[in-house]
Amino acid sequence: MMATQYEGNKTFTIFEKEKEQPSKNEVRIKVAFVGVCGTDVHIYHGMMDKRVNIPVTIGHEMSGVIDAVGEGVSDFVIGDKVVVRPLDDRKVKPSDKGFNHICEELKFIGIDSPGAMQEYWNVPAFVLHKLNNDTDLKLAALIEPLSVATHDVRMSGLQAGETVVILGGGPIGLLIALVAKESGAQVIVSEINETRIAKAKELGLTTVNPMQVDVVAYVKEQTEGRLADVVFEVAGVQSALDVMTEVAGIRGRIVMVAIHGEKKPVDLFKFFWKELKLIGARVYEKEDYEKSIALINANKLPFEAMITDVQPLSNIQQVFENIDKNPDGMKVLMDCSL
Amino acid sequence: MMATQYEGNKTFTIFEKEKEQPSKNEVRIKVAFVGVCGTDVHIYHGMMDKRVNIPVTIGHEMSGVIDAVGEGVSDFVIGDKVVVRPLDDRKVKPSDKGFNHICEELKFIGIDSPGAMQEYWNVPAFVLHKLNNDTDLKLAALIEPLSVATHDVRMSGLQAGETVVILGGGPIGLLIALVAKESGAQVIVSEINETRIAKAKELGLTTVNPMQVDVVAYVKEQTEGRLADVVFEVAGVQSALDVMTEVAGIRGRIVMVAIHGEKKPVDLFKFFWKELKLIGARVYEKEDYEKSIALINANKLPFEAMITDVQPLSNIQQVFENIDKNPDGMKVLMDCSL
Ligand SMILES: NC(=O)c1ccc[n+]([C@@H]2O[C@H](COP(=O)([O-])OP(=O)(O)OC[C@H]3O[C@@H](n4cnc5c(N)ncnc54)[C@H](O)[C@@H]3O)[C@@H](O)[C@H]2O)c1
Ligand SMILES: NC(=O)c1ccc[n+]([C@@H]2O[C@H](COP(=O)([O-])OP(=O)(O)OC[C@H]3O[C@@H](n4cnc5c(N)ncnc54)[C@H](O)[C@@H]3O)[C@@H](O)[C@H]2O)c1
Ligand SMILES: [Zn+2]
Ligand SMILES: [Zn+2]
Repeated sequence: MMATQYEGNKTFTIFEKEKEQPSKNEVRIKVAFVGVCGTDVHIYHGMMDKRVNIPVTIGHEMSGVIDAVGEGVSDFVIGDKVVVRPLDDRKVKPSDKGFNHICEELKFIGIDSPGAMQEYWNVPAFVLHKLNNDTDLKLAALIEPLSVATHDVRMSGLQAGETVVILGGGPIGLLIALVAKESGAQVIVSEINETRIAKAKELGLTTVNPMQVDVVAYVKEQTEGRLADVVFEVAGVQSALDVMTEVAGIRGRIVMVAIHGEKKPVDLFKFFWKELKLIGARVYEKEDYEKSIALINANKLPFEAMITDVQPLSNIQQVFENIDKNPDGMKVLMDCSL
Repeated sequence: MMATQYEGNKTFTIFEKEKEQPSKNEVRIKVAFVGVCGTDVHIYHGMMDKRVNIPVTIGHEMSGVIDAVGEGVSDFVIGDKVVVRPLDDRKVKPSDKGFNHICEELKFIGIDSPGAMQEYWNVPAFVLHKLNNDTDLKLAALIEPLSVATHDVRMSGLQAGETVVILGGGPIGLLIALVAKESGAQVIVSEINETRIAKAKELGLTTVNPMQVDVVAYVKEQTEGRLADVVFEVAGVQSALDVMTEVAGIRGRIVMVAIHGEKKPVDLFKFFWKELKLIGARVYEKEDYEKSIALINANKLPFEAMITDVQPLSNIQQVFENIDKNPDGMKVLMDCSL
């Protein structure tokens, strides 16, 4: 089988190795497609060398087919199409209060343990979600990032008819936009990159470029002064933090999806004045995966257009180099059989 | 009748004037007691000279008895004991989404229009809440700040058995502590002022001084690692903002009660990582007043001990000067008949 490894220093290697038999309660998946996540790019850039166990196979956005089943696995059979919810919560404690997906000792599979950028991948059966026989495995590789979006929208308590402003139209922001729109919201995406604005328009979304338009005035006008009911901060920059408290209306909810490595100035007065809520959101829970799988199976949203490139896994080094050269692309998949 | 006015420049005047007949839909209250709020002290310090209409009678924490009833008032009669919910929401708009208590054009009575620091006070009837015939009017002067506390606790969604950490044991922090404890929570008050710590202990509260003890380690130990379910930020200082994201456990809720005039650094990573919620809370709604009135009528909590001084209204200048000299006191009332 073909496998890849991140070796540090912006380098991936590709090599042949023996397929492994799944251990007890494990399955072996023949990986179909693996998506490249922002986190994978961070790892490639060496930003997570302290956390990952170099050399390491990374990758956590994937789809595949069960290829072998270990002892004790009863819910899955060879041939089942599956995706992995890459959260290893086996060290959950009572102090985690049942929030297993963010438990203190959570291990993220594909970062803290080997991932999907290989031809075959052995994983514990408890991380699996079953797909339909006719689920498109290319689209299914979007289920992991789509579940970030379904989780974020669920955490926001979004109601049909509400106005949503999404700050940042990257892969996560646009998936949130699609899910929010599907839930009956009026959605406005704020994005500064013209290629990504064009992509958002192609997806049927309303966009605004904060470099050209006063986003707050625009949203105010669109809502007869109500402003946004829900804001998603998915840009990760100070100017989005400055806008989020302005563009949210009375009792607005702001979902913090972006990861801010340092403390940043926040307008807490506005939280008091308008009784805003800030809602931290991290990864997903079982029900978010189920919602995403249903959306992919229904295939009514323009998911196909989210995939801007598909490359053979054997091109992994070039794939990461290209992402650096062209950061405008949306979701790049690798075909793990090639 | 006796009336007082803030004249600017840390100066109050006292003077005699004619009682006024209540206009249509108004009542005249014979004010019993008026409490001094932090906001009143801000006004005295000249910090709000741009907002208040100098010379102005201030005061919004009060109790009294209906003394005259204007045309069109049918729910109140002379002799009724009442308190005022000092929110004038007559300019509410559809874009306020029904959140009248924080509507964009809200006027705060006693700041934006004349207040209660006088012998008789004319107010529109819609701001009144009726008390019992035997309600203690001294305690009833606490209903306004107590309603801040009942609102904050309600906004937090507090459940019995949860652990609450209150950052700042001033009047508002201690009232929140009493309400939270009464709701069945385990309450820990963090305060740096030794006189206020002693007061909190006198009220039967558990206290911790962050200058002497690592609050996060202490709360961790008290909760078998769960940390706080709910945190109230009522100190208004950067170190409280630094502690709030540390001391909150997984999915912890942080209620922002304090008013931060400037943008301040906040650890947004912790919001993402632990899926924390930040909940802005401002003043109170009708049901919060009703809850507070019920608590004051029941009189099972140590409200009496919250009142550290009662002075005649004619001492107003000295009362404000003393608060500056001795900021350790808790709630100072003025008797408006003296
Ligand atoms: N909460 C979670 O579990 C979770 C999961 C995945 C990703 N994330 C985080 O979500 C964020 C978005 O992820 P992504 O993969 O879409 O990242 P991305 O970097 O591809 O997208 C961010 C987008 O924001 C845009 N942007 C930059 N400045 C802006 C501004 N001032 N106004 C509007 N848009 C602006 C950029 O052009 C870019 O398109 C990242 O911070 C990522 O770490 C969080
Ligand atoms: N949200 C609302 O509607 C509303 C209503 C009333 C008051 N407030 C605000 O609530 C806050 C508290 O009001 P208050 O009247 O009790 O004020 P206060 O100033 O009397 O109380 C603040 C307390 O915090 C303590 N403190 C300071 N640094 C601390 C630290 N590092 N750790 C712990 N405690 C610390 C102080 O010693 C003081 O006792 C103020 O910011 C006020 O403006 C808000
Ligand atoms: Zn990812
Ligand atoms: Zn007050």
